[in-house]
Amino acid sequence: MSITQSLSTSMISSSSSAFLVPTQLNSRPQSVSLQPKRVGLCKCVAAPQEEKIAFKTKVSRNANLTKLQAGYLFPEIARRKAAHLLKYPDAQVISLGIGDTTEPIPEVITSAMAKRAYELSTQEGYSGYGAEQGEKPLRAAIASTYYRGLGIEENDIFVSDGAKCDISRLQVVFGANVTMAVQDPSYPAYVDSSVIMGQTGQFQKDVEKYGNIEYMKCSPENGFFPDLSTVARTDIIFFCSPNNPTGAAATREQLTRLVQFAKDNGSIIVYDSAYAMYTSDDNPRSIFEIPGAKEVAIETSSFSKYAGFTGVRLGWTVVPKELLFSDGFPVARDFNRIVCTCFNGASNVSQAGGLACLSPEGLGAMRQVIGFYKENTDIITETFSSLGFKVYGGKNAPYVWVQFPGQSSWDVFSEILEKTHVVTTPGSGFGPAGEGFVRVSAFGHRQNILEACKRFKQLYK
Amino acid sequence: MSITQSLSTSMISSSSSAFLVPTQLNSRPQSVSLQPKRVGLCKCVAAPQEEKIAFKTKVSRNANLTKLQAGYLFPEIARRKAAHLLKYPDAQVISLGIGDTTEPIPEVITSAMAKRAYELSTQEGYSGYGAEQGEKPLRAAIASTYYRGLGIEENDIFVSDGAKCDISRLQVVFGANVTMAVQDPSYPAYVDSSVIMGQTGQFQKDVEKYGNIEYMKCSPENGFFPDLSTVARTDIIFFCSPNNPTGAAATREQLTRLVQFAKDNGSIIVYDSAYAMYTSDDNPRSIFEIPGAKEVAIETSSFSKYAGFTGVRLGWTVVPKELLFSDGFPVARDFNRIVCTCFNGASNVSQAGGLACLSPEGLGAMRQVIGFYKENTDIITETFSSLGFKVYGGKNAPYVWVQFPGQSSWDVFSEILEKTHVVTTPGSGFGPAGEGFVRVSAFGHRQNILEACKRFKQLYK
Repeated sequence: MSITQSLSTSMISSSSSAFLVPTQLNSRPQSVSLQPKRVGLCKCVAAPQEEKIAFKTKVSRNANLTKLQAGYLFPEIARRKAAHLLKYPDAQVISLGIGDTTEPIPEVITSAMAKRAYELSTQEGYSGYGAEQGEKPLRAAIASTYYRGLGIEENDIFVSDGAKCDISRLQVVFGANVTMAVQDPSYPAYVDSSVIMGQTGQFQKDVEKYGNIEYMKCSPENGFFPDLSTVARTDIIFFCSPNNPTGAAATREQLTRLVQFAKDNGSIIVYDSAYAMYTSDDNPRSIFEIPGAKEVAIETSSFSKYAGFTGVRLGWTVVPKELLFSDGFPVARDFNRIVCTCFNGASNVSQAGGLACLSPEGLGAMRQVIGFYKENTDIITETFSSLGFKVYGGKNAPYVWVQFPGQSSWDVFSEILEKTHVVTTPGSGFGPAGEGFVRVSAFGHRQNILEACKRFKQLYK
Repeated sequence: MSITQSLSTSMISSSSSAFLVPTQLNSRPQSVSLQPKRVGLCKCVAAPQEEKIAFKTKVSRNANLTKLQAGYLFPEIARRKAAHLLKYPDAQVISLGIGDTTEPIPEVITSAMAKRAYELSTQEGYSGYGAEQGEKPLRAAIASTYYRGLGIEENDIFVSDGAKCDISRLQVVFGANVTMAVQDPSYPAYVDSSVIMGQTGQFQKDVEKYGNIEYMKCSPENGFFPDLSTVARTDIIFFCSPNNPTGAAATREQLTRLVQFAKDNGSIIVYDSAYAMYTSDDNPRSIFEIPGAKEVAIETSSFSKYAGFTGVRLGWTVVPKELLFSDGFPVARDFNRIVCTCFNGASNVSQAGGLACLSPEGLGAMRQVIGFYKENTDIITETFSSLGFKVYGGKNAPYVWVQFPGQSSWDVFSEILEKTHVVTTPGSGFGPAGEGFVRVSAFGHRQNILEACKRFKQLYK
C-alpha cells in the first residue's frame, strides 16, 4: 500500500477538521508525518491485507459507514500536499486550507484556565463531575452575552466540547428515520453525520450527492441563499450563517423566510452560528433574532474561531424549550438525555476559559483577535479582486470564496499549490455547487498571508 | 408538575454520571438546586404541558429514545435525596452514591495543565486543532505505561474526553444491527447507549430487562463471573473489570475463558478497565494481557478515577489493528472515522495533564490518591463485615457491594438514607441481578467516610 492510501484511509481525519492535517504534516509533533516510522504505523491500520490476518470476528461492519466517501476531500488534500512536499522538500508551504486558528489566546483567558487548573489541587477548589449541560455561570453568561433579549434562558444552553461534536449528538437524537437538507456547498460534518446515522442513501458519483439528502444550492446566482420554492420538505435543515465555505451571511429577511419555510413544513433548523462574531454588517448574529425561531430552530456555536479554542475545545448548543417533536415532546429533553448518556460535560478548565472569554476584558480581547483575522480577510479579498477574480464572502466570515469560472476546483487547487506552494481548498469538496470555486482561509500569521498574496499576484498577474 | 417529576425528567442526568446530581443538590453552584428559580427552570423544559404550546414540528421523536427508562435509577435517587433534604433541611447528608472523586489533583499534574494554558498565549506555544486521535506524546505514553510488552502500539491508542463518551462512539461504529451482552449488574451506560442506537427491544418491566440484550448474571454464586456455558452468542460483549458496581475483578483464568468465548463466537469484547489501577492482586490490568485478545477486544479506560479527572475529562480507547470485522475491514479504521467526524480531540490542556499523570512523579502521585481511596474502601468493608453483612468487592475497586439477603435494594437504600442521612446506590439500579445489594462508594473525604461508617454501626448494631 502506498503512502497515499495509508494516509488517505487511516490516520487522516475524514471530516472537515482534517484540514488540520496538512498543517500537522508541517509542524505538529503529534500528527501525521511522512517519516517512514509513522507511515509504517499508518500502514498497520490502513493495510490489513499486508498483515497476516490471523482472525476475523463474525461482526458485520456497519453498513452506514460503508457509504461514507472516506476522506473524499481532506485526505486527498493531505495526500497532494504530502506529494508536493516530497517533490519540493525545501518549499515554504503556506496553508490557507484549514480553518485553524493561528493567533495566541489572550492572556485574560489562559490565565483563567491556569487558575482553575491550580485550584483543582486544593480542597476548596477541587471539583469532580460537573453538570453534563455545563457549569451554571457559563450557561448564564452565554445566554446573557449572545442571546440577551431573545428569550433564551440559561437552561436552554448546553455547553459542549465543540459544535462539531454537538452536531453528531443532535444526529443521535434525531436517529435514522429523519430526512435532512443541507446548503450546497456546506461544512462536510452535516452530511457525514447524516450518513453515519443511516439517514441517507448511497453516494451517487454522477451527481456527487448522497441519496435522500436535499442539497440546497447556494451560488452567486441566488446570492448564496437557496431558492426555497425549489427545496423539498425535510425534517431537519442544516443551515450555517455566516457560511463555511462561501462566507455568505444570510440577511434578516432571508432568515425570516427560512424560519417561515420551516414552520410551513414543520421542520427543525439546525443553525450553525460558529462565525457569527465575524459579522460586520447588521445581519442577525443568531437565528433566534427571528420571531418564532424558538419553535423551529436549534443553534450550535463555538469558542473555536472566537478565542482560538480549536484545541481547547468548547462550544454550546441552544435547544429552546419551545421546540417540540410532532408528539409535543420537547426536543430539549431528548437532547439532554443524549448529552447525559453519551457525554460527560466539557473540561472544567476549558469552561473556566470560556467564562473568561465572556468577561468584558475577554470579549474585548476576542474582538481584537477576530479583527486581526478580518484584516487578513481583507488582504486576501483585495488581492484576488485586484487580479480580476470574482470574490465572495470575506465580509462576514474568515473565508474568501474565489470563483474560477469554467475551471475545476481541483485543477485550480493543484495549479496554486504547484506554482505558489500555497494550500487552499477546492470548493467542490464542500458539495457539487462548490465546483469552480476555491476557498481561501484567512486564519494565518500576517506574514504568511502577505507572502501568499504576493505569490498569488505573481501567478495571476 | 411536581418538583419531583421535573427533577426526574428534565435537568437530571439519566446516565450513571447522574450520580453527581445529589452532590450538586448540596454543593455545586452550576447544578440543579431546589431554589424556586431553578425548579422553575427545570419545569420549563420538563413540563411543556404547563407552557402554552404554540407550535409542534412535524418531526417524529426517535423511537429508540422512547424505549429508554429515563432516569430509571439516578433521577429517582436524586428525587429521594431532594425529598430527604426537604424533610431534614439540617441533616448532614453524606453522599457515598456517586462514584465521584473528591481528592484534589496532585500539583505535578495541575501545574502541567496551567503551563500548557499559559503557553497557549504565546506564538511558540499556541496550537490549534490537535489530532482527533490525541497528541502523539500522550498516545505513546499511554501505550508504554499501561500496555508495555503487550503489542499495543501508539497508533492503537485513541485519546478521548472519557470512557463514557467513547462507549457511545463505539456504539455509533457498531450501529443498530449488532447484538450485545452486558454483565448483570453493570454500568448503565452500556445498556443505555445500546438502546439509543436501536440495538434493543422494548424494556420488559416484568424482568427489568431490555429485549435483545444478553444479560450475563454476575452474583456471589458464580464469583461474579458469568457462566459462559449459559450465555448466548452476541456480536458485542461489554465487560468491566474491576467491575462497577460489584467491585469484582476477573482473574487471568476467567479472562482467558472470556477471550476464548469471544473467539469461538466471533464476538468483539469492549473491555472497560477504568478501575484497573485499583487492582491489588495479580489479576490482569488489561484484557490485552490475555494471549489473542487483540483479535477480539477493544479496551476503554480513563484518567477520571486515577487522577481525579472526572471534571477535567480525559480517557482513551485501544482498538488493536488486529481486530477485524467479518469482511476483514479493521475496526480501528471505522473507529478512526467516527472519532474524526463526531469528535475533535480532547482538550489540549487536559492532554497536557494526562501526560504529566504518566511521568514518574505523576504516576507516584496517582498511586497515592488511589491508595487513599483504597483505605476508605477498607474502612467501609470492615464496617459492614463487622456488622455481619456479606461484603463483596472493595479489594480491587473503590466500590463495596453489600448484600442484604431477601431485601429490596430500594428499601435498604431508603432505610439507610432515612436513618443515617447517607446516600448509597440500590444495586437493582445496575440490573436485575443487583437486587438485594447496595453499592457503597469509597470516594469521599476521610472524615465523611468515618462518619458514615459510624452511622452505619449505629443503624445495624
